[in-house]
Amino acid sequence: MSPIEEYLQSNARRFQELLFEWLRIPSVSAIPECKGDVHRAGQWLQDYFTSLGLTSELIRTEGHPLVYAETPPVSGAPVVLVYGHYDVQPADPLERWDTPPFEPTERDGNIYARGASDDKGQLLTHVFAAEACMQGGKRLPFQIKFIIEGEEEVGSASLSKYLKENRKKLAANCVLVSDGCMFGPAQPAITYGLRGIVAMEMTLRGPSRDLHSGVFGGAVMNPAVALTRMLAAAIDENGKIRIPDFYKDVLPITESEHTQFSMLPFNEEQFFEKIGVAKSVGEKGFTSLERRWSRPSFDINGLTSGYQGEGSKTVIPSVASAKFTFRLVPNQNPAEIAANAKTFFESIKPEGVSIEIKYEHGAAGMVVDIDESKFIPPAAAALEQTFGRPPVFTREGGSIPIVAELSQVLKAETLLIGWGQDDDNAHSPNEKFSIGAFRDGILASARFWAEVGRSAAVNERLRT
Amino acid sequence: MSPIEEYLQSNARRFQELLFEWLRIPSVSAIPECKGDVHRAGQWLQDYFTSLGLTSELIRTEGHPLVYAETPPVSGAPVVLVYGHYDVQPADPLERWDTPPFEPTERDGNIYARGASDDKGQLLTHVFAAEACMQGGKRLPFQIKFIIEGEEEVGSASLSKYLKENRKKLAANCVLVSDGCMFGPAQPAITYGLRGIVAMEMTLRGPSRDLHSGVFGGAVMNPAVALTRMLAAAIDENGKIRIPDFYKDVLPITESEHTQFSMLPFNEEQFFEKIGVAKSVGEKGFTSLERRWSRPSFDINGLTSGYQGEGSKTVIPSVASAKFTFRLVPNQNPAEIAANAKTFFESIKPEGVSIEIKYEHGAAGMVVDIDESKFIPPAAAALEQTFGRPPVFTREGGSIPIVAELSQVLKAETLLIGWGQDDDNAHSPNEKFSIGAFRDGILASARFWAEVGRSAAVNERLRT
Repeated sequence: MSPIEEYLQSNARRFQELLFEWLRIPSVSAIPECKGDVHRAGQWLQDYFTSLGLTSELIRTEGHPLVYAETPPVSGAPVVLVYGHYDVQPADPLERWDTPPFEPTERDGNIYARGASDDKGQLLTHVFAAEACMQGGKRLPFQIKFIIEGEEEVGSASLSKYLKENRKKLAANCVLVSDGCMFGPAQPAITYGLRGIVAMEMTLRGPSRDLHSGVFGGAVMNPAVALTRMLAAAIDENGKIRIPDFYKDVLPITESEHTQFSMLPFNEEQFFEKIGVAKSVGEKGFTSLERRWSRPSFDINGLTSGYQGEGSKTVIPSVASAKFTFRLVPNQNPAEIAANAKTFFESIKPEGVSIEIKYEHGAAGMVVDIDESKFIPPAAAALEQTFGRPPVFTREGGSIPIVAELSQVLKAETLLIGWGQDDDNAHSPNEKFSIGAFRDGILASARFWAEVGRSAAVNERLRT
Repeated sequence: MSPIEEYLQSNARRFQELLFEWLRIPSVSAIPECKGDVHRAGQWLQDYFTSLGLTSELIRTEGHPLVYAETPPVSGAPVVLVYGHYDVQPADPLERWDTPPFEPTERDGNIYARGASDDKGQLLTHVFAAEACMQGGKRLPFQIKFIIEGEEEVGSASLSKYLKENRKKLAANCVLVSDGCMFGPAQPAITYGLRGIVAMEMTLRGPSRDLHSGVFGGAVMNPAVALTRMLAAAIDENGKIRIPDFYKDVLPITESEHTQFSMLPFNEEQFFEKIGVAKSVGEKGFTSLERRWSRPSFDINGLTSGYQGEGSKTVIPSVASAKFTFRLVPNQNPAEIAANAKTFFESIKPEGVSIEIKYEHGAAGMVVDIDESKFIPPAAAALEQTFGRPPVFTREGGSIPIVAELSQVLKAETLLIGWGQDDDNAHSPNEKFSIGAFRDGILASARFWAEVGRSAAVNERLRT
């Protein structure tokens, strides 16, 4: 066993306790009442970086703080920027959690807590791996930078701004992100594509107050009726999105990608059974992997109107609203999609209601050119050493809005290696993260740092 | 001033205090937690009947209790059954009330409280009027019966059952109901028609838990998307309801009714301005009075799905549900409409979600033949004496589900005289009832009792 592996083994319990400590902070970026807790979670990480002897900062922003840290620069050697986020999704509905979301609990080899997988547990693997590589004051033969934000779940506005103003500080050859999934419990994956997103909210207002549906029904446009009609018009029965020009920039799925996806060891029936869905339903003419990874989609995330309590209440609601998201693929432009959606809904709004459409946040999708990558080979080697099999190459349906932007602004390669599983309930009650994946993630990350160091040393020798 | 009028004047303050006392009891029949309060409100009324020296009962049922009371029977004279309800609508959204719903408040000549107009304030007019007519132990020359229920807002199941088993006890020539509106602040009205209702709830279930809309979006049927599509299919852009056979039994609007409605002093612009609606929208080819009174309608009363908090949460909701109602006109059959709606929605349900449809409650609409009525003449006289002008004849868009049933089972004439106003917010925040209407209602009711007594005496004389 190498000194690094020994270090990891003897610190495994401590690492898990540190993760638990961090998970206890309810850093929900979307809920204003949690602002203090989000700050506390950022401070926790910065304190830890400081304890490792790294140069670090808690960067105040107009929103939630950023955490930055770096190992000493090494002239001529590559720079890897680790990106991650310490904010988490809201935990509701609370009553559907088996154990409280912010009281991390070990059960059946998993850690149950909001943020366990998305993304506190995953991002800490790289921190602990770097710690192991630097033990005893060892200098790394390349530089690691960390930029960890607290607004990933609400659109990354502050990092986006900071990035543009601090290109030099964040400059890197590779942006390493662990905020996704393996292809299965024992199958590592390198993700070479992400979907983008456009999140919107539409509110329709009718009468100035809820009305008696008997006295007024039939003579007043009901905002809930208008809302259902308008949303129904956005997507047809074949899963085609009916916003004008929606598909014009969609990067088609190549023949080789289609073949590669179809060769993946994917058990569709089992996959959907796990989420209680009898049958995959979606855009006609595509497989379910293609629908999730390489095709855009439309989802209503929330509906609110009128009486929602027990029994019946015969009102015409004054207000009806919906939260909805589009998932985008390269090369769809989020701002353009949002503008077209707004125009579309405004154009079909019936008489008798007023409309308000908010563009909450958006991000483009991305794809990496596998054949051109300099960091995929060391990553693939580290993964194969750790998991005993080479990684598969996949895309991801989710969005990490800032990732496309980081790689674009920094002109850096993106390397996405997830330690999660599809059933981690990332945005649902009972979010979990496998303890084994946490341990293997740290080990694979340490091996990746070693591989990068080796090739840096080779480069160095070649240069001198 | 007659002794009755003197009595009313000297007791006006006391009557209002009694109403306030009753309004303080939150007798919300739809909310299980209010069961005790509903009972308390029934008990309050029965106690008051007892204090007047009437034979009375608090009748326990499987739901909320019924209150029954009667004056002494008078052989050969008519019997008038007063129907009303002491249960009220839920008060939420609470934050939109200017003063708390169960702390009655006098403001600008109105009483603000849940139930002030619908129906505690209105029904008490007949109780206090009867009290005035019986002052000093005077025997009425006919019999008044009172049947007051606690389930009007949730379908009247217990009274419906009790009625069928107690036809003789409740037997009457006329069912008098005050649970509606005047035609304007100074314009009394006799309502000769009511719409019926079918209230339903539809729940769609997709994945067994909320899913990450990035990881799964596009490959799973989203229950909220399915719900909006299905509801949108129920009513077209011209306001036509698309449930099969929906219109087959609809009683057409007669030429004379059309003319009569068009002659009513109805300021459409003002009417809709008061509820913050710029333009009446509804079924093509009908006036807004016709739409509200004589045509069926469809309204969504509530929508619930997914994330409803602040900001965005990118989930595919596990469940989406809607509460909705149809308003019916004679001779539509509620059970048949409900069954057809269920079949319709089941037939258009997309793959990938399961459906549950509940038929909450239903009632037929009704119309009275004005020319055949024996009680409209004395009622019209009492109204003209009180308000200085004859009543107009109107229909009502709302439903009093039990009224059609009472008149049918008892073979009694129905007499609907509302003391409310269209803007009383009967099912909305800030429900109110005019203090003037409360006072005039008591006076007009007392005069009605006197008119009925006079004609009873005439009948008696003619008979002997």
